[in-house]
Amino acid sequence: MTAIEHSTLEVAVLANGQALSVPVYRIRGESDGPSVYIQANMHGAEVQGNAVIFQLLEQLKSQHCLGDITLVPLANPIGSNQKSGEFTLGRFDPITGENWNRGYHFNKSLPVEFAADNKHLTNDEIKQNFRQAIIDDLEQNKLNNPYGAKTSQLLCAQLQRMAFDADIVLDLHTGPISSRHLYCPEYAKDRAILFDIAHVLFIPSDFDGAMDEATFCPWWQLQQAYQAQGRDIEVMVEAFTLELGSQEWLSLEAAKEDSNSVLSYLQARGVIDGEAFQPRKMIRYGCMLENYRALYAPQSGLVEYLAPFGDVIEEGGPLVQILHMERYGELDCVTQVNAPQRCIPVLHFASASVNRGTELYKVMTNFFTL
Amino acid sequence: MTAIEHSTLEVAVLANGQALSVPVYRIRGESDGPSVYIQANMHGAEVQGNAVIFQLLEQLKSQHCLGDITLVPLANPIGSNQKSGEFTLGRFDPITGENWNRGYHFNKSLPVEFAADNKHLTNDEIKQNFRQAIIDDLEQNKLNNPYGAKTSQLLCAQLQRMAFDADIVLDLHTGPISSRHLYCPEYAKDRAILFDIAHVLFIPSDFDGAMDEATFCPWWQLQQAYQAQGRDIEVMVEAFTLELGSQEWLSLEAAKEDSNSVLSYLQARGVIDGEAFQPRKMIRYGCMLENYRALYAPQSGLVEYLAPFGDVIEEGGPLVQILHMERYGELDCVTQVNAPQRCIPVLHFASASVNRGTELYKVMTNFFTL
Amino acid sequence: MTAIEHSTLEVAVLANGQALSVPVYRIRGESDGPSVYIQANMHGAEVQGNAVIFQLLEQLKSQHCLGDITLVPLANPIGSNQKSGEFTLGRFDPITGENWNRGYHFNKSLPVEFAADNKHLTNDEIKQNFRQAIIDDLEQNKLNNPYGAKTSQLLCAQLQRMAFDADIVLDLHTGPISSRHLYCPEYAKDRAILFDIAHVLFIPSDFDGAMDEATFCPWWQLQQAYQAQGRDIEVMVEAFTLELGSQEWLSLEAAKEDSNSVLSYLQARGVIDGEAFQPRKMIRYGCMLENYRALYAPQSGLVEYLAPFGDVIEEGGPLVQILHMERYGELDCVTQVNAPQRCIPVLHFASASVNRGTELYKVMTNFFTL
Amino acid sequence: MTAIEHSTLEVAVLANGQALSVPVYRIRGESDGPSVYIQANMHGAEVQGNAVIFQLLEQLKSQHCLGDITLVPLANPIGSNQKSGEFTLGRFDPITGENWNRGYHFNKSLPVEFAADNKHLTNDEIKQNFRQAIIDDLEQNKLNNPYGAKTSQLLCAQLQRMAFDADIVLDLHTGPISSRHLYCPEYAKDRAILFDIAHVLFIPSDFDGAMDEATFCPWWQLQQAYQAQGRDIEVMVEAFTLELGSQEWLSLEAAKEDSNSVLSYLQARGVIDGEAFQPRKMIRYGCMLENYRALYAPQSGLVEYLAPFGDVIEEGGPLVQILHMERYGELDCVTQVNAPQRCIPVLHFASASVNRGTELYKVMTNFFTL
Repeated sequence: MTAIEHSTLEVAVLANGQALSVPVYRIRGESDGPSVYIQANMHGAEVQGNAVIFQLLEQLKSQHCLGDITLVPLANPIGSNQKSGEFTLGRFDPITGENWNRGYHFNKSLPVEFAADNKHLTNDEIKQNFRQAIIDDLEQNKLNNPYGAKTSQLLCAQLQRMAFDADIVLDLHTGPISSRHLYCPEYAKDRAILFDIAHVLFIPSDFDGAMDEATFCPWWQLQQAYQAQGRDIEVMVEAFTLELGSQEWLSLEAAKEDSNSVLSYLQARGVIDGEAFQPRKMIRYGCMLENYRALYAPQSGLVEYLAPFGDVIEEGGPLVQILHMERYGELDCVTQVNAPQRCIPVLHFASASVNRGTELYKVMTNFFTL
Repeated sequence: MTAIEHSTLEVAVLANGQALSVPVYRIRGESDGPSVYIQANMHGAEVQGNAVIFQLLEQLKSQHCLGDITLVPLANPIGSNQKSGEFTLGRFDPITGENWNRGYHFNKSLPVEFAADNKHLTNDEIKQNFRQAIIDDLEQNKLNNPYGAKTSQLLCAQLQRMAFDADIVLDLHTGPISSRHLYCPEYAKDRAILFDIAHVLFIPSDFDGAMDEATFCPWWQLQQAYQAQGRDIEVMVEAFTLELGSQEWLSLEAAKEDSNSVLSYLQARGVIDGEAFQPRKMIRYGCMLENYRALYAPQSGLVEYLAPFGDVIEEGGPLVQILHMERYGELDCVTQVNAPQRCIPVLHFASASVNRGTELYKVMTNFFTL
Repeated sequence: MTAIEHSTLEVAVLANGQALSVPVYRIRGESDGPSVYIQANMHGAEVQGNAVIFQLLEQLKSQHCLGDITLVPLANPIGSNQKSGEFTLGRFDPITGENWNRGYHFNKSLPVEFAADNKHLTNDEIKQNFRQAIIDDLEQNKLNNPYGAKTSQLLCAQLQRMAFDADIVLDLHTGPISSRHLYCPEYAKDRAILFDIAHVLFIPSDFDGAMDEATFCPWWQLQQAYQAQGRDIEVMVEAFTLELGSQEWLSLEAAKEDSNSVLSYLQARGVIDGEAFQPRKMIRYGCMLENYRALYAPQSGLVEYLAPFGDVIEEGGPLVQILHMERYGELDCVTQVNAPQRCIPVLHFASASVNRGTELYKVMTNFFTL
Repeated sequence: MTAIEHSTLEVAVLANGQALSVPVYRIRGESDGPSVYIQANMHGAEVQGNAVIFQLLEQLKSQHCLGDITLVPLANPIGSNQKSGEFTLGRFDPITGENWNRGYHFNKSLPVEFAADNKHLTNDEIKQNFRQAIIDDLEQNKLNNPYGAKTSQLLCAQLQRMAFDADIVLDLHTGPISSRHLYCPEYAKDRAILFDIAHVLFIPSDFDGAMDEATFCPWWQLQQAYQAQGRDIEVMVEAFTLELGSQEWLSLEAAKEDSNSVLSYLQARGVIDGEAFQPRKMIRYGCMLENYRALYAPQSGLVEYLAPFGDVIEEGGPLVQILHMERYGELDCVTQVNAPQRCIPVLHFASASVNRGTELYKVMTNFFTL
């Protein structure tokens, strides 16, 4: 029976002086397997990852864990509690509009400087010293800045501080109304098939503020910096964002399946012992991030979503129909929006009312099988 | 081919000076059948009624309409356009919090005064003169008040002004996540079975501000006032609120079914000619409004809704399970909320995150078959 | 030196499982003076009352308190923490739109029933037994209801439970942009002049859900019920709502003045000993609640507020000018809204952008000097 | 008398099918003076710029305008009408959280490519051809994209399309609670003193999505690209953001002063004839953008803002005091936040309730006199 330690970490303080904290569950690895950090629910409405952490904990209890595993459900207590009407408006800071998953820290000059200053370190020394360097940089710029830092930056920095100790980071999200999909850094392409996730988006080494990028960008750019010096090292850390279906939806049964998927990845990476968990056989599609396209509503109106997730839609195939009840009797009272090119729909907007310019669907184009 | 007239009515003005208006579709009756007013989408997220009006118009084109029919989709342009995150936060005025469907006008002294002052009128004169009296009262108090009136009152008053001309008023709503259900005034109990709606809530003659109440309360209380004087008259006007399923959801196909349901009612009431539309055979359940109970969350947490709509749940039967991921390892990490008494679930909350005191389910208790 | 006890009371639980609580400060009376309950900040943006409680505590430390005094700042932790943009959207429950200060409990049949059932009690017995009756009723209907209760009702019920133990209740609010004003029940008219507040609104015995009404309505209606039986008793409890200026504004200095005003009232009522605090000499105006009128914007646009608080504005005098920049070049690019009758402006809307129907000003009409 | 043409431009469409448009006022220049584009109210709550446009139009009527002037008040009808409680939550798209003033288009490869491809053009040809190039690029990528574009991008692109025709662009904003200040590109430093604005922030050539940057970045980077090729050209277009005080505040009188300030700039730049308008004598302070620092709340609580705008605060001088009413009786019930270094406060947060990490003040550091 694996022991699970439970603690809490204060990550925010409300105007009435009350602290908000996140639960932290920790498993100590039995040997020197890779260490893992898993969090869920950074966006308030995306709750299903919490259920996956529940099922992971249930299953890990009877596994041999070779590396340390830290699991943080309910990672954003501000977002979890931000309601506007029935819905959980927890995607962005209600004060500033800033997306909670864009507040992570990355100092882009650090990898190049480190590689320049540390040419003769061993790989192990690189790993240890660079990890310390990014931790120091985070603490100095965000956690101990004399001018303070934004609420979102403080929250992110504290989560990131835990993630920086890990070799593997999994950030559990969901789409709005969505099928399962995976964000995978290009350099870790071969590991995408270890999850039971049929749609994979491959992302480049640019930083846009998300947890996965904040985790792998320093290490990936470090690898590139050494490569530019003529030395080949591995990217020493990897991170994935798992999108586990739709927001505002909880299912313990579906979460069990997703926990199996995560465990098959963890087992393949040597975090847990044995061979009990294997990825399911399925057709997996991938595309590059630049080919993962949002289609914005060309007209306002009331929307019926027509295209099922996962199907290949040919160019010109129907995606949505829009009802314009202010125009009854005119030809265009019901209009249709079609696919601009061959694509696979992955998610769609969560409301039946759209403005011109609302994101209707996100689709994979120029996709390929993995 | 029935002619459909199209006009627009300005109901609000935005801060930048732009008017917001509603589309108004009108069919002139071929003879003296009852006149009808149908509106949809008073709450911004409840869009399906628009599709029902679309299908009604499509079908009415080839019917003989004996009475006038006025149809107003998109009845609340402020609510339709009030977004907060993806969702349409159009249930209440964002400035004041006032529920848009509680802003209608009713002067409760009017029926008693009218009955006292007009003892010797014929029934036809009562109908005509009392209609004029409530119209005058509305205009004086809301539309032409020297102090003005609230935004919600102005919107409601203009819709109500149109509804006051009708003998039958149907207000098309939806629940959050919901099965079809019908609000029916107790005095019109026998007409509940004319709709294809399995769950019916019978409401008393009290006024709580909604369109259906604002329509029938004056006439019902007038009937009561004459009755108190020893004269029996009919309630001369009737109104229903139809809840057509879930919010933020549009389906032209489901709307076709609901338009058939409305047409079967209208045909039975002599608004359209013939016998083409008949109510479907189904088991219909009813309960009194006081027995339509909301169950509030006894604990906060992440919710999986277990009870299907329409099934009879016995006392103690499971309604939801709540995941408390901050308590993993404790016995009550997953708790269950059970039915306090035998009931039929009709709708549930639209989010998987709830606070203590959030409305989880609304259920019919002490129900009976119609 | 008066001892101040400090405790906290849990009043809500967030979706992530964290409890929200309010601080409770208690002073034990040295003898049998009236007991007092003072709360502040039930509406999230109305923070100044907290500063007044701060100054009261500072001053009470060196007073002889004859009755118990309970002070609850930050009374609504949900509202205090509900941001939308920079502002504290804490006036209504973000899920339901319900005004936080309308969720208190009052069972209107209780006073009449109690008076009927308890004709022969002494005044002291009436006070003690009726207090217990309303406490029991509150607990049964709100705190221990098998169907639960709404979030706002649970919060209110817990505050109300504390207030029910007191003979005097002061609820500290502010307006939007506002001068100081006082809501005073008609029966306590003579006590209005004990506060340093120039504008007084006299309210009738109807219940509309606010804390002051929830406090005095049971006792006032009890007095009326006994009176109907031919027995004259006093209204045994009194409650006031103090509006301390504008929302989103904190001033420790202004709070000191308001604490003096409250202390002069408390001293006059025998809660604190001595004669140190006297009401300031000022012209005080009063009007009946029905004559406290809201003026709604007749047009949308950008507003410059012209009428200063506290001045008498004659009929036709200017209240606001509205800029309509979409109409430059037309005569009505700048319009003016004038007083429909002689009045004293007490507060105005907090934004420069208004819709048709937005409350521009609240004004006293048919006012008189106290 | 200068003729003012009035038209309207549709910039968005609501879910109920209604178009939202902006008013456009145009003055044709009498000769070949620089052309000017002035807009106001891109953020919904920042209304004072509309009043300044009103006063500009009033004054321009009697001036000789040498260049074309286009004035667009109420530039963001979506933001103007986005209320949340009393306040105008019009800073970011309520659906996505995206700041309305970050949605402008800039293709950063364009200047370098253009300079490479057009080495031998005359200065006039550069101005004409590059202007066409950025217009074409905008239309292709935003206005005519087969995938559509975001609501905010569509709004911005249409405003930007008008601004691209001008040589001078002024974007009128306000702070939250704020003194007047000016964002000025470093290359136009000498023109900062032409406005009656005491605080100037000098911004570099990086693009962050705002209107001023979207206007000058292409031209500034074009100048840099030619310079890298050894050819010196001027930056041919200039743009400023004027912050005119506080949001949610309208004053026609203050607007008159600001219109004089704008006219003194326009006269100096040859847009209007004569010498009637001269900048006022005042001490003007400037700092580089990197030295314009936000101070974030180190603690949550209720805030009293202490530091007046425009004063020099020494290191350690008091900026705010924070009241923590949950800690009465403890030493830190009232805490103070002090200046981390010598600075001039320019604006502060608009609410008295702050979380840890809320922006309290923005201050100029390392400032200098102009």
